[in-house]
Amino acid sequence: DSKLKVFSLNSNPELAKEIADNIGVELGKCTVTSFSDGEIQINIEESIRGCDVYVVQSTCEPVNQHIMELLIMIDALKRASAKSINIVMPYYGYARQDRKARAREPITAKLIADLLETAGASRVLMLDLHAPQIQGFFNLPIDHLVGVPILSDYFEEKNFEDVVIVSPDHGGVTRARKMADRLKAPIAIIDKRRPRPNVAEVMNIVGNIEGKTAILIDDIIDTAGTITLAANALVENGAKEVFACCTHPVLSGPAIERIDNSKIKELVVTNTIPLGEEKSSEKITELSVAGLISEAIVRVHERQSISILFD
Amino acid sequence: DSKLKVFSLNSNPELAKEIADNIGVELGKCTVTSFSDGEIQINIEESIRGCDVYVVQSTCEPVNQHIMELLIMIDALKRASAKSINIVMPYYGYARQDRKARAREPITAKLIADLLETAGASRVLMLDLHAPQIQGFFNLPIDHLVGVPILSDYFEEKNFEDVVIVSPDHGGVTRARKMADRLKAPIAIIDKRRPRPNVAEVMNIVGNIEGKTAILIDDIIDTAGTITLAANALVENGAKEVFACCTHPVLSGPAIERIDNSKIKELVVTNTIPLGEEKSSEKITELSVAGLISEAIVRVHERQSISILFD
Ligand SMILES: Nc1ncnc2c1ncn2[C@@H]1O[C@H](COP(=O)(O)O)[C@@H](O)[C@H]1O
Ligand SMILES: Nc1ncnc2c1ncn2[C@@H]1O[C@H](COP(=O)(O)O)[C@@H](O)[C@H]1O
Repeated sequence: DSKLKVFSLNSNPELAKEIADNIGVELGKCTVTSFSDGEIQINIEESIRGCDVYVVQSTCEPVNQHIMELLIMIDALKRASAKSINIVMPYYGYARQDRKARAREPITAKLIADLLETAGASRVLMLDLHAPQIQGFFNLPIDHLVGVPILSDYFEEKNFEDVVIVSPDHGGVTRARKMADRLKAPIAIIDKRRPRPNVAEVMNIVGNIEGKTAILIDDIIDTAGTITLAANALVENGAKEVFACCTHPVLSGPAIERIDNSKIKELVVTNTIPLGEEKSSEKITELSVAGLISEAIVRVHERQSISILFD
Repeated sequence: DSKLKVFSLNSNPELAKEIADNIGVELGKCTVTSFSDGEIQINIEESIRGCDVYVVQSTCEPVNQHIMELLIMIDALKRASAKSINIVMPYYGYARQDRKARAREPITAKLIADLLETAGASRVLMLDLHAPQIQGFFNLPIDHLVGVPILSDYFEEKNFEDVVIVSPDHGGVTRARKMADRLKAPIAIIDKRRPRPNVAEVMNIVGNIEGKTAILIDDIIDTAGTITLAANALVENGAKEVFACCTHPVLSGPAIERIDNSKIKELVVTNTIPLGEEKSSEKITELSVAGLISEAIVRVHERQSISILFD
């Protein structure tokens, strides 16, 4: 059958290495650098003719650089006669720009889907999309993996006595429900509302958290405003302790400072976005999605169903 | 008839303002900023429904940022019901990646063309493409303007006694010929060649430059290696003095230092790429392409031929 090759671009070299190791292949040889004027230069240094190529790239910060690297790589692979070009995008940048919330806004999440198709992607594998509807932005086969099992398994081992899974906003209740099912726990919801315009939001908690270990779950933690306010509200309202978790640790701007100064005891994230040096905190635990992704790649390559990975 | 609007993105705000002033319209209101995580946020702050919109953006450094700004802006304009989306790209980034010079290289200049079409561009106006063949990468109407007249007019006013126009390499002879026609001057060519592998290149000059004022012309000056070596070779071989000019002053890396230390008396460039503070040198003179571009825009809008602008 056709050969499987895994290439890494610049967003996530360690995760890509881990995936290749799991699958039992060497990472494909290519250099992705810049010319003196900042234009991206890609050299693929081994033949990929007729191969099923998997390219690992999260479009995290610097997002525009990472998107262009990915598009140029797809162009190069296409012209070098790859049989299929499979994009492994652990984090899908611009996912929050998925609708016109106001007049004359772009829908950048759809634009990115169109750009990937235009460049020549054959299929895209993603993890915990901000909105699952983004799958419909593509006319390609999409594999959409979920991080809840990885996060749940970690907390399961802690054997908490009395746990409640908390969604930090209305949009995340389905995700909280999934985790609660796995941990056989009840859920609660932070029901933020603004009583009048220009008046501070009120954090109302729907559900019983009194004396319980609360686990906040979200897909993305960006500036960490929502999650740290939620954590503090939970403690003020009687929670015994508060953990937080998310799949995608964007952690931009004041995020680390806010987390360090918050009532969050531990923040559990995955490596869809590498933390790097500026994003380190003693409170953060990083779990790897390499096992999940490499299993999905092997199953896709061997034409097996991957739905088994969704529970 | 439908209304003409000019919008600027972040590459070239001063040129865009000059173009709008020339045409006699206000610049369209929009803000192009970044979210905390580096994702581009665009807000178009006036209705453009049914309008012919012109967006001014050079894809110069930071090139990937500028490309994504442009694509997202096109997406927003399309969804806001612009009648036509006309891209004014004074400088076309990635133009040098226009063919597979080696195995498994991308052809990024073609990719960019496809991305612009996919996003929703109706027409593209460009200036001095590195290779005119890039026009054929588009399935859209292209207006391709040339900077030679602007550069030639500047030198004409100097009333040099005995001028020769010099192409710094084989690829630029046609451009040198065009300038020579306007200045009624002869041409010469720097004929670089490498006698044996791993031996320094020899700068051979084809044509008579003895005692003459030499004007080197190129489309892009990037790190300025070629042009400064050429200038020094001309002086060593008996030129009276050496001027240099180009349309696109990329001027990356060591360019300014090399120019300052070279035998070039004056370097004349246009503002397709803004010079900014890091790119300043007393030797550099900047000419504006705003007149050329605004005339082209008005002619396109009034459905007149623009071929008159090519001589
Ligand atoms: N990178 C970003 N950072 C912060 N907010 C964003 C970003 N991208 C989009 N948004 C905004 O976030 C909102 C969507 O978030 P959500 O309601 O959680 O789906 C929209 O109103 C967007 O304008
Ligand atoms: N941004 C860039 N800076 C320097 N060289 C480049 C750049 N983009 C492409 N090239 C190379 O320049 C060559 C094309 O230049 P030319 O022969 O002048 O058309 C190709 O071999 C490219 O690999």
